[in-house]
Formats: sequence, structure tokens, C-alpha cells
Amino acid sequence: MREAYHDQLGQLADRLADMCAMAAGAMESATTALLEADLGLAEQVISNDAKIDDVRASIEEQAYALLALQAPVATDLRTVLAVIHAAESVERMGDLALHVAKAARRRHPQQVLADDVKPYFAEMGRIAVKLAGDATEIIRTQDVDRARALEDEDDAMDDLHRHLFSVIMDKEWAHGVASAVDTTLLGRFYERYADHAVSVAKRTVFVVTGRMPGYGGDENV
Amino acid sequence: MREAYHDQLGQLADRLADMCAMAAGAMESATTALLEADLGLAEQVISNDAKIDDVRASIEEQAYALLALQAPVATDLRTVLAVIHAAESVERMGDLALHVAKAARRRHPQQVLADDVKPYFAEMGRIAVKLAGDATEIIRTQDVDRARALEDEDDAMDDLHRHLFSVIMDKEWAHGVASAVDTTLLGRFYERYADHAVSVAKRTVFVVTGRMPGYGGDENV
Repeated sequence: MREAYHDQLGQLADRLADMCAMAAGAMESATTALLEADLGLAEQVISNDAKIDDVRASIEEQAYALLALQAPVATDLRTVLAVIHAAESVERMGDLALHVAKAARRRHPQQVLADDVKPYFAEMGRIAVKLAGDATEIIRTQDVDRARALEDEDDAMDDLHRHLFSVIMDKEWAHGVASAVDTTLLGRFYERYADHAVSVAKRTVFVVTGRMPGYGGDENV
Repeated sequence: MREAYHDQLGQLADRLADMCAMAAGAMESATTALLEADLGLAEQVISNDAKIDDVRASIEEQAYALLALQAPVATDLRTVLAVIHAAESVERMGDLALHVAKAARRRHPQQVLADDVKPYFAEMGRIAVKLAGDATEIIRTQDVDRARALEDEDDAMDDLHRHLFSVIMDKEWAHGVASAVDTTLLGRFYERYADHAVSVAKRTVFVVTGRMPGYGGDENV
């Protein structure tokens, strides 16, 4: 009985990891769509988002059923709750990739981004996808040390995000208001995505250690 | 024994309602600070945010203890889970009010907003605070019909947010790039805040009915 229960718990974590990998793939494609004004790729991300939402709904349902039927305690309880929370964060990551793809579609065939900010987005995209990939592995392996290392990547994202702002706000900005607005929102989408990926990893640490590493602030605009 | 347990559950919901009222107050003050360049009020919102975060941490702890010690089922289980989720959303609402206050502080003694967009923010602020106040009442009363009515308020917020964008993106925009960027982010903070307030109310509906009204999308940039 308990055996079957642990199988279900493992299955739940596997599905969460799969979902996180989907969100990583969505952001990778969305970034390419953005940088290369690739409409087909943008459309693909947009239509695939519903799949991520479905996986989330089904993970949550399965988690609730586990809680109700098995009344887990201690680490098992923490695992189920962490999965519910993490699934919510991963769904948001999917939504943010969707926003990026929609921006690419909205301006097509024009480029959304001015050439001088593209390198920022190439790098923010790389970090975002790496963070989501790392979070996927951390869910699978429960590797606490690796989860802690994500903070550095997230700091790199925050630095890029800050630099990007100084570029947009600079008096030399020559691309007009509409482009500044698009660039501002897109920058925020990447920064939020990274934040959610880190929070997914932190939840995993919580499961293993029973202590949540400091959380509570989203101090980065 | 069960009696004491239901007292604890009621207490938990009360604390969540108090926390939601704090987030409403934070947004009300932050909006005034923004519209009137009131530094003292901005500082107050900024320093009070830690209190909201503390309440959230303590609600989550209490909820986990309830789950672990009492292993609730059915409606009780759903209530505890809804509280955990809602506390996360309310903490985000506090963070968003914090961002508004920080924008007011950053530009002080200058005004952040151009005169022609101020009415948008006065109205978005009013709706945001009303939604948070309504969510507070819904947590206290479990009034399902009232929760459904929040959707209309949220639609009004989305409309304002869309109009605001068309003002910023208009060729007539005369306030420069930096102001457009600030205005864009601030608009998004209000829109996200409203979204979270509605999701708190929806979670309450879920507790009462066992069915989550359609969720999954944040379709509004």
C-alpha cells in the first residue's frame, strides 16, 4: 500500500519535471522567435501553452487526490505541497514564454527588438532556459547543492536586467517610445521567469531539508 | 478535538483575511504616494511590506502544521490548501504595492506620472483596492456569488490597462522614453495585483464548491 503510494509520489515529481522541461523548451523557442522574427515558432509556443496548463491542472488534481486519500505526513507531505506550489510557478513560466512569443507575433514581420538590445535578450534567454533546465534536473535528482548554485545564475539575470534598463533609459536611446515599452516588458518577462525557476528549485530544497531558503521578496523590478 | 481543529482552521482564514486587508491598505497608500509624490507614505509602504511577508510565512507554517497533525480531508483539506495558495498570491499583491511605492520614492520629489495618465492610475488604484477589499470579505464570508462578481471589476482593470497602453504607444506621447517605461511597468503592477486578488477569491469559491472556476491563463500583458 505504502509502496504504491511512493510510486505515485515519484510519478508526480516526474510529471512536474516533464512540465518544467516543457516550460524550458517554450522559452527557448520563444526567444528564437523573438530574435529572428520567426512567426511559425511563435505560433507553436502560443498553441503549446495550453498543454502546459493541462499538465498543471492534472498534477494538481493528482496531488489533491494523494493528500485526500493517503494523508501523508512529514517529508511525503512536504513533497506533495512542494509539487503543488512548483506546478503553479512552472505554469507561470509557460505564461511568460507565451508573452514573449505573442510579442514576436504582434510585431511580425517587423523585429520587436532594436539591434543594440538583442545581445541582452540572447543572454537573458540563455540563462532563463538554463535555469529551467537546472530546475528540471533538481526535481529529478533532489540535488540540494545544485539548487543553491542557481542563485548565481539568477543574479546574472538581475544584472542583465538592470543594464538593459539603463540602456533603455539612456538619453541616447534612438528607437522611440513603442520600442522602449516593448523592450521594458520583455525584460521583465525574462526576469520573472528566472525568479520562478529559482523558486521551483528552492521548493525542492525545502522538501529535502525541511527549511525554505530565504524567500519573500521580489525586490527586482 | 475536531472542535479545536475547526477553531484553528477558522483562525487561519481570519489571518489570511487580515493579510489581504494589509495588502489592500498597502496599495491604497502606494497609489496616493504615487499620485501625490508623497515620500513619507511611500516609505511607510516600503517598510510595512516585511510585515505582510511575515504573516505569510506564519500562515504557511500554521497550515503545514495543521496538515501534518490533523490530516484533514474533503472540504477541510481544500480549505487549508486554498489558504496556502491564497497567502502566496496576497504576498505578491504586497510586493506589487511595494514596487509602486518604490517607483514613487525613486523619482521623488519629481512626479513619476505625466498628468494625462494620472486619471488612469487613480482609477486602477481604486479598482485594485476594491478588489483586495472584496477578496478580504469573501475570505471572511465565503460568499461565492460575490467572488463571481469580481470578474467584472477585473475586466474593467484590463480595459483601463489596454487604454493606458494605447496612450503610451500613441505618436502624440510627449513625455519621453523614461516616463513611458515607468508608466508601462506601473500599469503592469496594477494589472497583476488585480489578477492576484481575483485568484484569491477564486480559490475561496473552490473551497465552497469544490470546482475551480476556469483558470490557467494570464492572457493580459
